[in-house]
Amino acid sequence: MAALPAGFPRDAVLEAAQAAADVARSVVLPFFRRGVRADDKNDASPVTIADRTAERAIRAVLSERLPGFGVMGEEFGLEGGDSPYRWVIDPVDGTRAFLTGRPTFGTLIALLHDHVPVLGVIDQPVTGERWIGLRGEATRYVSTLPGTPVTRPCADVGRAELSCTAPEILDALHRPGFDALAAAAKRTSWGGDCYAYGLLALGQIDIIAECTMKIWDWAALVPVVEGAGGRMTDWAGQPLRADGDGTVLAVGDGGLLPRVTRLLSPPLP
Amino acid sequence: MAALPAGFPRDAVLEAAQAAADVARSVVLPFFRRGVRADDKNDASPVTIADRTAERAIRAVLSERLPGFGVMGEEFGLEGGDSPYRWVIDPVDGTRAFLTGRPTFGTLIALLHDHVPVLGVIDQPVTGERWIGLRGEATRYVSTLPGTPVTRPCADVGRAELSCTAPEILDALHRPGFDALAAAAKRTSWGGDCYAYGLLALGQIDIIAECTMKIWDWAALVPVVEGAGGRMTDWAGQPLRADGDGTVLAVGDGGLLPRVTRLLSPPLP
Repeated sequence: MAALPAGFPRDAVLEAAQAAADVARSVVLPFFRRGVRADDKNDASPVTIADRTAERAIRAVLSERLPGFGVMGEEFGLEGGDSPYRWVIDPVDGTRAFLTGRPTFGTLIALLHDHVPVLGVIDQPVTGERWIGLRGEATRYVSTLPGTPVTRPCADVGRAELSCTAPEILDALHRPGFDALAAAAKRTSWGGDCYAYGLLALGQIDIIAECTMKIWDWAALVPVVEGAGGRMTDWAGQPLRADGDGTVLAVGDGGLLPRVTRLLSPPLP
Repeated sequence: MAALPAGFPRDAVLEAAQAAADVARSVVLPFFRRGVRADDKNDASPVTIADRTAERAIRAVLSERLPGFGVMGEEFGLEGGDSPYRWVIDPVDGTRAFLTGRPTFGTLIALLHDHVPVLGVIDQPVTGERWIGLRGEATRYVSTLPGTPVTRPCADVGRAELSCTAPEILDALHRPGFDALAAAAKRTSWGGDCYAYGLLALGQIDIIAECTMKIWDWAALVPVVEGAGGRMTDWAGQPLRADGDGTVLAVGDGGLLPRVTRLLSPPLP
């Protein structure tokens, strides 16, 4: 695992990220199970309201604490784009879960340095769980629920718990690879969004394979998973990139990577 | 909604069911995220241990409180089968969720009278939510999370939130019907097991369609969903039966039933 950049304001960054997650939690929770539906005519959908309000609050906290850093979010785009440091935020990751009252949606806050994630926070407003990953340090898990943020060994794909948020996120190009992996894995469970990556970082899940993912969907997950001993790459085993193909693979045991990437990327006919 | 049978010991039944759910919660929680895996050689898997221990504890509470009633559970079969009253219990509904550390598995306790569910409890040990349904009464929801146990109106399948636990539970015979329903619905979300029925009873989900369901998977759900204003039938719109075809349909708005059952049961070719 690479070290933090020289001069990295470690403590200020950790405090800012957690303060922003605290604020997001207090903004998002009042919308949980209380909203109108997402397709209401005026577009004032609960996700939009919760997303926008929380994204504004997160931006306010982060830019007040670390004014020189850039901030990128889904709703309000990029501010301060000339800094090598860039926050990438997703106030409500897991729209389907949020809209159906499930407690598994989350808030994601990442910090990139030269486009590489160096810090990630996964916060679950309903269950009160929080994962904090910082490059070069062990992942922390702050929760009243049980769990130790260390991935588990898994020597063989045939013994692996595989997870994916929904079949609908698997596009036609990537479906055959996923199906091959699912056929080889012990079991597949569905649902979860960012929560599944937190569970992988607790040694509960071995493999997650998803596609059509944007940078705000995966940036915060990388330091959490890697600081717990796992690996995150694209489906070809290459580092994740903002301009990549949208495939995301997480494994708790890095030894799984060669076999899993072969299954996910079958030779072209 | 039909009335309770004459002489039904309402208060004793409600108290027994809740005492049993309390005991199950305290037995199951220590296994959550702490187990060995389900395929370990000695079969001392966390689900097996949690299931058996909780089922024994539930049986002990119920038979001590209402000694004349029958009890049926997945692990230890049927006791007292000649009573018209029969408890049907599933200590850990949602094996995949439990095994992957998700908080959405649940404990199900139902009471049948002449094979018809008259009481149902859905208990979520991790989130602390509990739904209690009793025939002829409004469903109760006991929780620190927000929610009102009333289903929501949904005039049109095209505006409906559809949910299903996993594509794997849809067998080849029933997959085309589900796919037709999913194509007509607004959105499909995955995962949930019994939790999804609780969310439907809170007006968060409009339709759930599943198959390969046993009586202990669905008996407790019926009084919860119907006491919240919804309807539960098989995919043909007929009452659920222990010797039925394993299909289960729940709708929050009973007006959806004709269209949904048509979609689920396409004419044979």
